[in-house]
Amino acid sequence: MVDVPEVSVRALGPCRIASPLAPLIDDKRTTQHYVDEDDRVLLDDTLSMIAQRNVPIDSLPGFEPAGPRRKIFFDPSKTRVGIVTCGGLCPGLNDVIRGLVLELTSHYGVTRIFGFRNGYQGFIARYGHSVLDLTPELVSTINENGGTILGTSRGQQDPEEVVDCLERMSITILFVVGGDGSLRGALEIGRVARERGDKIAVVGVPKTIDNDVPYIDQSFGFQTAFSKAAESIRAAHVEAMSSPNGIGVVKLMGRHSGFLACYASLANSDADVVLVPEVPFAFDGDGGLLRFLHRRVEERGHAVVVVAEGAGQDLLAQEDPATPQGSDASGNVKLRDVGQLLTRRITDHFAAAKMELNLKYIDPSYVIRSVPANPYDSVYCIRLSHAAVHAAMSGRTEVIVGRWRRRFVHVPITMAISHRSQVDPAGDLWLSVLEATGQPVRFR
Amino acid sequence: MVDVPEVSVRALGPCRIASPLAPLIDDKRTTQHYVDEDDRVLLDDTLSMIAQRNVPIDSLPGFEPAGPRRKIFFDPSKTRVGIVTCGGLCPGLNDVIRGLVLELTSHYGVTRIFGFRNGYQGFIARYGHSVLDLTPELVSTINENGGTILGTSRGQQDPEEVVDCLERMSITILFVVGGDGSLRGALEIGRVARERGDKIAVVGVPKTIDNDVPYIDQSFGFQTAFSKAAESIRAAHVEAMSSPNGIGVVKLMGRHSGFLACYASLANSDADVVLVPEVPFAFDGDGGLLRFLHRRVEERGHAVVVVAEGAGQDLLAQEDPATPQGSDASGNVKLRDVGQLLTRRITDHFAAAKMELNLKYIDPSYVIRSVPANPYDSVYCIRLSHAAVHAAMSGRTEVIVGRWRRRFVHVPITMAISHRSQVDPAGDLWLSVLEATGQPVRFR
Amino acid sequence: MVDVPEVSVRALGPCRIASPLAPLIDDKRTTQHYVDEDDRVLLDDTLSMIAQRNVPIDSLPGFEPAGPRRKIFFDPSKTRVGIVTCGGLCPGLNDVIRGLVLELTSHYGVTRIFGFRNGYQGFIARYGHSVLDLTPELVSTINENGGTILGTSRGQQDPEEVVDCLERMSITILFVVGGDGSLRGALEIGRVARERGDKIAVVGVPKTIDNDVPYIDQSFGFQTAFSKAAESIRAAHVEAMSSPNGIGVVKLMGRHSGFLACYASLANSDADVVLVPEVPFAFDGDGGLLRFLHRRVEERGHAVVVVAEGAGQDLLAQEDPATPQGSDASGNVKLRDVGQLLTRRITDHFAAAKMELNLKYIDPSYVIRSVPANPYDSVYCIRLSHAAVHAAMSGRTEVIVGRWRRRFVHVPITMAISHRSQVDPAGDLWLSVLEATGQPVRFR
Amino acid sequence: MVDVPEVSVRALGPCRIASPLAPLIDDKRTTQHYVDEDDRVLLDDTLSMIAQRNVPIDSLPGFEPAGPRRKIFFDPSKTRVGIVTCGGLCPGLNDVIRGLVLELTSHYGVTRIFGFRNGYQGFIARYGHSVLDLTPELVSTINENGGTILGTSRGQQDPEEVVDCLERMSITILFVVGGDGSLRGALEIGRVARERGDKIAVVGVPKTIDNDVPYIDQSFGFQTAFSKAAESIRAAHVEAMSSPNGIGVVKLMGRHSGFLACYASLANSDADVVLVPEVPFAFDGDGGLLRFLHRRVEERGHAVVVVAEGAGQDLLAQEDPATPQGSDASGNVKLRDVGQLLTRRITDHFAAAKMELNLKYIDPSYVIRSVPANPYDSVYCIRLSHAAVHAAMSGRTEVIVGRWRRRFVHVPITMAISHRSQVDPAGDLWLSVLEATGQPVRFR
Repeated sequence: MVDVPEVSVRALGPCRIASPLAPLIDDKRTTQHYVDEDDRVLLDDTLSMIAQRNVPIDSLPGFEPAGPRRKIFFDPSKTRVGIVTCGGLCPGLNDVIRGLVLELTSHYGVTRIFGFRNGYQGFIARYGHSVLDLTPELVSTINENGGTILGTSRGQQDPEEVVDCLERMSITILFVVGGDGSLRGALEIGRVARERGDKIAVVGVPKTIDNDVPYIDQSFGFQTAFSKAAESIRAAHVEAMSSPNGIGVVKLMGRHSGFLACYASLANSDADVVLVPEVPFAFDGDGGLLRFLHRRVEERGHAVVVVAEGAGQDLLAQEDPATPQGSDASGNVKLRDVGQLLTRRITDHFAAAKMELNLKYIDPSYVIRSVPANPYDSVYCIRLSHAAVHAAMSGRTEVIVGRWRRRFVHVPITMAISHRSQVDPAGDLWLSVLEATGQPVRFR
Repeated sequence: MVDVPEVSVRALGPCRIASPLAPLIDDKRTTQHYVDEDDRVLLDDTLSMIAQRNVPIDSLPGFEPAGPRRKIFFDPSKTRVGIVTCGGLCPGLNDVIRGLVLELTSHYGVTRIFGFRNGYQGFIARYGHSVLDLTPELVSTINENGGTILGTSRGQQDPEEVVDCLERMSITILFVVGGDGSLRGALEIGRVARERGDKIAVVGVPKTIDNDVPYIDQSFGFQTAFSKAAESIRAAHVEAMSSPNGIGVVKLMGRHSGFLACYASLANSDADVVLVPEVPFAFDGDGGLLRFLHRRVEERGHAVVVVAEGAGQDLLAQEDPATPQGSDASGNVKLRDVGQLLTRRITDHFAAAKMELNLKYIDPSYVIRSVPANPYDSVYCIRLSHAAVHAAMSGRTEVIVGRWRRRFVHVPITMAISHRSQVDPAGDLWLSVLEATGQPVRFR
Repeated sequence: MVDVPEVSVRALGPCRIASPLAPLIDDKRTTQHYVDEDDRVLLDDTLSMIAQRNVPIDSLPGFEPAGPRRKIFFDPSKTRVGIVTCGGLCPGLNDVIRGLVLELTSHYGVTRIFGFRNGYQGFIARYGHSVLDLTPELVSTINENGGTILGTSRGQQDPEEVVDCLERMSITILFVVGGDGSLRGALEIGRVARERGDKIAVVGVPKTIDNDVPYIDQSFGFQTAFSKAAESIRAAHVEAMSSPNGIGVVKLMGRHSGFLACYASLANSDADVVLVPEVPFAFDGDGGLLRFLHRRVEERGHAVVVVAEGAGQDLLAQEDPATPQGSDASGNVKLRDVGQLLTRRITDHFAAAKMELNLKYIDPSYVIRSVPANPYDSVYCIRLSHAAVHAAMSGRTEVIVGRWRRRFVHVPITMAISHRSQVDPAGDLWLSVLEATGQPVRFR
Repeated sequence: MVDVPEVSVRALGPCRIASPLAPLIDDKRTTQHYVDEDDRVLLDDTLSMIAQRNVPIDSLPGFEPAGPRRKIFFDPSKTRVGIVTCGGLCPGLNDVIRGLVLELTSHYGVTRIFGFRNGYQGFIARYGHSVLDLTPELVSTINENGGTILGTSRGQQDPEEVVDCLERMSITILFVVGGDGSLRGALEIGRVARERGDKIAVVGVPKTIDNDVPYIDQSFGFQTAFSKAAESIRAAHVEAMSSPNGIGVVKLMGRHSGFLACYASLANSDADVVLVPEVPFAFDGDGGLLRFLHRRVEERGHAVVVVAEGAGQDLLAQEDPATPQGSDASGNVKLRDVGQLLTRRITDHFAAAKMELNLKYIDPSYVIRSVPANPYDSVYCIRLSHAAVHAAMSGRTEVIVGRWRRRFVHVPITMAISHRSQVDPAGDLWLSVLEATGQPVRFR
């Protein structure tokens, strides 16, 4: 029997106010496609999963569907809203800000929306960041640019001070657009507000360039990011093809999860090897990476290696056990540079084998995360931000909005930060990578 | 109680041959994410849906998961494969052809793969189309171009003649990449082969620029197509903004389903009105389209209308009841031109109101379907084609591969052609369109 | 002996005020590359041309170089500036507006800049268009969008009324961004102001999507436009390749000049035939277009025809001699539709020959002119607008800025409207088209 | 008086064979635009330049115009041609190869064209590189990919051995697509062939990502490269804007010439500082770079620095006088890393000033040179390759084809390698950069 997780969503209280969107909802003909607000979107998607739960059908775990409610909790005319973006950039941040503001104003009639600058710093007086009045005019075309008009920063701030600020400004809805660490912060803010008896809805829109937040099909901006990353792999391929014994090495983001490396590599099938944090690899030996590359270069004249920044950290620690690793402002452990290790080991190998080598190293870094969202992600962001507004107006709190099996749902923040989503070495994505590259199941 | 549909997949016989991919599979650690080949992916995704089935959990309907099997039906060394692409172009056709060929050759060791030219015409002797030998070298970079290297054509051919051709060439696996009509043809071919006792696997890869094949999350090429279509909406918006009382009208594909119009319109939120086949509309009256446009132009100085070609066909039939509608080679009813009707009615309205009008009409037509697949669709196509090869090698037939709730699955062709997927006027996509445009629930 | 044209530029008076840009200029080391303000850029570029002038070297015709002067005519602190954009859209309009505003404010310190809306209508009271205050903040990112934030319109207005408006607003510099007709208007405005004794500098920035303004190497936005147009040719090619006997027909802008059709066709070499206004063609006969297409389709299976809208107008007039042609608001004669004629004649020909034909017609229309400028055109626009500001501040009037043999120069408007630049059927551009397509020198 | 340079082009002998292109030429109506093959394109473009020559008009220096001749030197039916690409990648290499092959085969009827692999290595037996038969089929779509299908390598080979190879293979026309060093090699090959009495035409197509070959308006691929580079500047800008005190540093190619940095920076005006090899700069002091950045960050909250790799080499040498600099295979001195120096000095400065700093460093490196040519460069490449074929068939040798003042011309290789083209600190391009960035004339 598999545990039934706690998927119920915290609410600030009963919804008693008629929603301005009720006409849109009530016009709806009832069809099987519509998810009623009292229905639940199944957490599981296979027969064996639900069988293993060993509970009656009506006890199967399911997420609350997102979307507008007939009745809402907050009185729009008296509601003041805050928005903050935290952590590293990701395509689509401005789309989300814009979507939140437009939905709040044009459909709910909320008129006071404040943008806090530079992440959680924006709430703390000593940083001195001014607050931005977010109006429909101000945000109308911001989606055409990458980045975030609110700015961002890494790291936590004292949740007590944040709630102080919210109280001072009479803000009762706070949208946090951020990743793992920022959502933990949001949870703390929600908790503090709750303990103080404040009726403040804290709603997260999960942001992760690594696509590693669980219980969401795919994070916003991810398609844009891997599409952009694929350009670097193509560049490495072209360079490798154009020189005798050319090898291209491309380092991509991905601290704990290799989704970006996998998808970008599948996008044009130029990669010969993909290295991700989830699958350990060895350099040496008959089944090792170096021998594989050696053979590829002999057979095809060139090769491309795509490596996620978090891959091979165990090997790096072995190479350099003495140096302690620091952390950045978000508390992320600073990674050792696998790109340098790879180029050094490959160079040494070919030198030892007395083979010519033309190695080109490409690190697209920030370029993939600062571009505007592509059309798919734009659509996704606008729908996600609509869902976030509906959730907040109905008094949901300590919750994120996500898309689960293509349905927009409410996921408790506690679940969203319970673990990281990773590439399953036994799943179909990694299998596709193995099929596309022809690399062995493991380099060992 | 809701009927339990027949989702079981037809197979040519028991799988007794060890798959060359078994090592990839057997290496897998067992995890909850892996879908076992005996498991089923639930057809339903909400609690109320499965409750309404009123059957025990283990009788809930579910699709067979796609993916490699440990044992396969066909002996790769003796297998000859045919591939055909049918109907209108769609981004990703070459990606699918390439994916099929590379998976067949590099992972299963199949060496005889034949491309039939110009759709089902390619099987019929009197058309005189030569057959293309599909090798890894030939297909290695075809994904960089739009269209299909096999060519295509509309319309059916006699399934008996097609099976004659397959028999003559000893082909035992046929991949049909095509839409609704072509899949009906594939079903006929499968039936004829079955009745003759031929062990021929007929596996479809569903193709539809309108995204209207049911039981697949999204059809390949659809994201590329709506992204391209969004450019025309942007152009219309820029033109409309740059002239006094500017109105842009954009006609997009979408005979029966308005998905393309909805997604393209959401992509940059430039549209003021979206018209789709699923939602009837009226021109006249206080709640009609013309009055709405009139007001928008007064308030904002400009407006953009996006119309799917299949919208308003009832109005067109009223205008011109005498002319009978013909059909094209695929048997599709020829649509009357809603774009012309719109421009005429809008022009007349503004003339009657003695208002200046600068109307620009844009029909991107073929441009949106002839572009190469974007990175997302490329990844999707390669994974879809891998799934199709696994299905065929394991002897599945009269089946398509699709993605259901993000799982790759086998769907019987009978289900795939049972109805068209449409935009649900009561669902969350249309609600997002209403929220983004601010247009009323219905023009009436 | 060839006439020496009048290339001298009209100036409002002597320059006596030290330019704020003098430090930038005076810092310059003297080098051969710098063009001194008293020097002249040769009108001619070959030995035979200057020999034919039969004048002493120092009498050879040459344009005044553009660029900053050490002394200027207008006192920046008292200068009020107007900007207007006229005629059809063209990529780069917003770049030019932005470049003018930024140069005026940050380098000359001019603070009052007015944007007149919707072309020359903006000066005329009865249209009721408000005036836009153009500030650096307002224009800082407008270059990222196509179109023009000022709006535009076709057609002339009474120059007396325009000068009335300029006098009322104390505007002494007027920038007109427009084409042939709008520059004629600018000349009239300059003349009226001159006759009234007003010291008003009227400086044009020539805009033409057809690249047909003479004495400028290439008009701004042209590269962006032909790059975009090339996408349609590629689409037509992909469609034509994908069907038995496929023919793609692409109609592009180009009323009197085929530059757009030529460059777009050379960009990817997909075209089999290019038809331009400068080279008459015949449909019938052994050397006619239809026979050529017939052969191409027989030999290659497909063909692509690119036609400029102004091509074949003589043939259209023959077909339909009765109907008189009207004119649009700019006084342009309305063209008959060569695209329809082509598709009809091709369809008839193949029907008569009893050959299958799959003809696809693509008209990208406004899509090619409403996109933002590409990086090359952005650079060009910013440099052009800098040159325009320098010209105006030094009191030049009835002049355009252009680029001649890669030097920025001042060209009297009288020269710029003296004739249209056209594709020379005897020149190297057309020769390149003939070489790339393999079409005969003439269809006749 | 300024020296009259030697611009006459070496020819292998008189042209006595009627060109297959004569009909195209003879059809030409004589117009002033056509450049007759006996005419000359003026080297100078201003009145003062030609006045300073102090020679009669008919002695003014001028380039021989490129283009087809009525009579040619080589008999196409007996001509064998070699093509080689050398040095670093550049967008458009495949366009040039394709253009050469198509023009040679379809217009001159030359059928034996050999592609030598990996630069000059391809001629030398001990490298063992096979030769590629270049046919129209093989090259028909190679322009859609970046890189070069022939591969490339850096460095010279013994010209005697190269000529040995040409003699062995009876090759009489050699096209060298390469930069400064490779053109020197081509000159040597031409000299050796000449001294041996071989009638071998050696024709160069100048390739330089730095746009530093003199006497050509702009090198092929340059627009594509700076457009791509502009994306990195945009990314740096977005990152800098999104963090408190954000500074983006972008390092671009440009060993001796800053054209790429200048044009890319002008493309979107995001740069606050542009550093090029031609303009020395100082870090410290009131007029130094660091103080300027400090002020920008205080005023605007962020700043972007674009640096060409060759900038500041004098400062780097001072910092690290001990380490000798090596050279690469092409003999290029290895540059010290100005990007590292910049980031270190900026970081130190802000640390000393106790200001928060969020510095993001972007090095797009190979990505900008491995992309396919954009439409403009594609057109340019095809026209350039046509010109090269005409030059070679008419027996010109030790010559490059280029575009001078928008005319295609023949330039002796000796002139093309006489010096590097550089950004003139007193010219209008650098002035535009100063105007766009607002940076001072010099940091000192």
